[in-house]
Amino acid sequence: MTNRITILGSTGSIGVSTIDVIGQLGEAYAVDALSGNGNIELLASQARQTRARLAVTADESRYQDLKQALAGTGIEAAAGSSGLAEAADGDASWVMAAIVGTAGLAPTLAAARRGANIALANKECLVSAGDLFIRAVEDGGGTLIPVDSEHNAIFQVLNEHHRHTLERIILTASGGPFRTWTREAMANVTAATARAHPNWSMGLKISIDSASMFNKALEMIEARHLFDVRPDQIEVIVHPQSVIHSMVGYADGSILAQLGCPDMRTAIGYALSFPTRPTLNVERLDFTKLARLDFEAPDEAKFPALRLARLAMERGGLQGAVLNAAKEVALDAFIDGRIGFLEMADITESVMDRMQGISAASSMEDVFAADAEARRFASRLIGTSAAA
Amino acid sequence: MTNRITILGSTGSIGVSTIDVIGQLGEAYAVDALSGNGNIELLASQARQTRARLAVTADESRYQDLKQALAGTGIEAAAGSSGLAEAADGDASWVMAAIVGTAGLAPTLAAARRGANIALANKECLVSAGDLFIRAVEDGGGTLIPVDSEHNAIFQVLNEHHRHTLERIILTASGGPFRTWTREAMANVTAATARAHPNWSMGLKISIDSASMFNKALEMIEARHLFDVRPDQIEVIVHPQSVIHSMVGYADGSILAQLGCPDMRTAIGYALSFPTRPTLNVERLDFTKLARLDFEAPDEAKFPALRLARLAMERGGLQGAVLNAAKEVALDAFIDGRIGFLEMADITESVMDRMQGISAASSMEDVFAADAEARRFASRLIGTSAAA
Repeated sequence: MTNRITILGSTGSIGVSTIDVIGQLGEAYAVDALSGNGNIELLASQARQTRARLAVTADESRYQDLKQALAGTGIEAAAGSSGLAEAADGDASWVMAAIVGTAGLAPTLAAARRGANIALANKECLVSAGDLFIRAVEDGGGTLIPVDSEHNAIFQVLNEHHRHTLERIILTASGGPFRTWTREAMANVTAATARAHPNWSMGLKISIDSASMFNKALEMIEARHLFDVRPDQIEVIVHPQSVIHSMVGYADGSILAQLGCPDMRTAIGYALSFPTRPTLNVERLDFTKLARLDFEAPDEAKFPALRLARLAMERGGLQGAVLNAAKEVALDAFIDGRIGFLEMADITESVMDRMQGISAASSMEDVFAADAEARRFASRLIGTSAAA
Repeated sequence: MTNRITILGSTGSIGVSTIDVIGQLGEAYAVDALSGNGNIELLASQARQTRARLAVTADESRYQDLKQALAGTGIEAAAGSSGLAEAADGDASWVMAAIVGTAGLAPTLAAARRGANIALANKECLVSAGDLFIRAVEDGGGTLIPVDSEHNAIFQVLNEHHRHTLERIILTASGGPFRTWTREAMANVTAATARAHPNWSMGLKISIDSASMFNKALEMIEARHLFDVRPDQIEVIVHPQSVIHSMVGYADGSILAQLGCPDMRTAIGYALSFPTRPTLNVERLDFTKLARLDFEAPDEAKFPALRLARLAMERGGLQGAVLNAAKEVALDAFIDGRIGFLEMADITESVMDRMQGISAASSMEDVFAADAEARRFASRLIGTSAAA
């Protein structure tokens, strides 16, 4: 049986890996729609390679370029948010949601509502709109499978028979490049230090989120929605080798873990093949070369983001959306040299405190409004802070 | 619903832990029969505490003592192999097979044949009589669940949906007290050194089997029968902390592992509660205290037992029974100071080589005959060797 799949965000790293995995799965998957942004050449090439029905660029100004690149192939072209909606609303039984940012919210929510199985790689669906999104999945009746390596690991070792005895989720964190630094040293980090650091090859924003552990804070909020656990059931442990992708602790004293080499294709393949498991041409872990795995408790004085995640979960409502939006603005300000490294958390917390009164989201518009307001608040605070 | 359970070997450490677990599981289990050997006081006390129907001492000479200890309780007493057969043949839907040695074979096989679910803690059922035993379980239609921490770990992370993509089983081994010694130093170990070693508190024979890795060799053979894998799919990795109890490697690059504190009650509780998972009052693993986990490849020049296990699996038939019996005799000879530490493997291999012609077991008698012959061969070799 061939499943039809739509890949929202096919030109990013998750999208490219998804197309590789689909190739490895043989006849199991056929591509329905693909969406990308400005990389028209790659998008058109993927569409031709996978014989997609539809290709969509999120950037309306590139519609003609895409149409031209697909001329004579019989593949439809579309653009902008209406194009994304068209891709999400197709008849694909699977949707890989790999669009980065709030742009991923509307099409992924639409796909969930119509009952598609969602392989989820977009953070905002859960961090900013968790309650709405989980309700949409439940109403639609599809299956939601996380693709993030941490949450995919948890999903792999969370058997439905054992759900009632889940005690805790243990998210592993690399600890980032400043793991061994003092809080004082971290306070003086600049974007220039950051750029010069050898470990920061994976992209500046992601690297800074890893160094501040804001990435782990977002993952805590995601885990809460995905696995329906209380905030106090989510632990974070620093594990620099990142070989154990995450763990689940059960009421019989067992901890189950998923381990592997760093390769997103394992999580993607597992998600798309669920409930079976695929055969993939990826590197196998060799324990004789591994030598050792280390663990340490995260220092929350150095990584206040973890405390902010718990605060957001305890307060509920739109605090996740607020945390995420305020952090994004603070991150840009840090990169521009306008605030210090540890101020990113201070700004985020101030915005969260000011916006804790607003009620839970009843629609996507409420999420967008909270996101926009949090960004305005954060910008204003940073303006003040930078002027001081 | 209350399940009736029979515990064969209730006075040993697994038996005692099983009674503790049953107490923790509340109404889920009621004891049918218990068996022990010479510790009549403990056996009678366990029978009274659990309100068992029947108590059996394997030692016929202690029948009157047991009968007297149970006088007035209404609990039946029995003794010897007929008593064990009576215990195994009751109507208990579960049998915990925790009798040590070949004495456990006949009653466990009988329980398997009548379709009881078997929680297996006896090594000989699989090492010496694996083919016969697995056939008995299949014919009976009960479920076989390993209680050994390594195999229980594998069982926990081996989902039936993923069985077809199992690539390898990774048995973890502590490496024993001589892990860091040279082969030359190991050659000069005596039973006296062994007795004096601080790590050897768990019982001399078990400690020596751990130091020689013959315990791991037996576990490799057990894994082959339990999980129906080829010999080349079984890896052994030295992991001194023994926190990861064992792992399964899948064709998508995922490794799934079960971790925990050293407490047999977790494996026992999991086995008895399968397919659900119990809530147990056992210590939880704290990763902040754990600090690190180490791994290294076992040195097969120092631990020839691992090679012998592969040889036994490749040859098949009764080579497992031969390995086990010859090793037992060699172990006794080492403890008596008649052979050196590394000679245990030499003797075992010689006996295996001499007995590789015999055909597979068609009955329990064939297993007992091979066991007895291997013991004779080994004794003769040791006589020669000690005289030399």
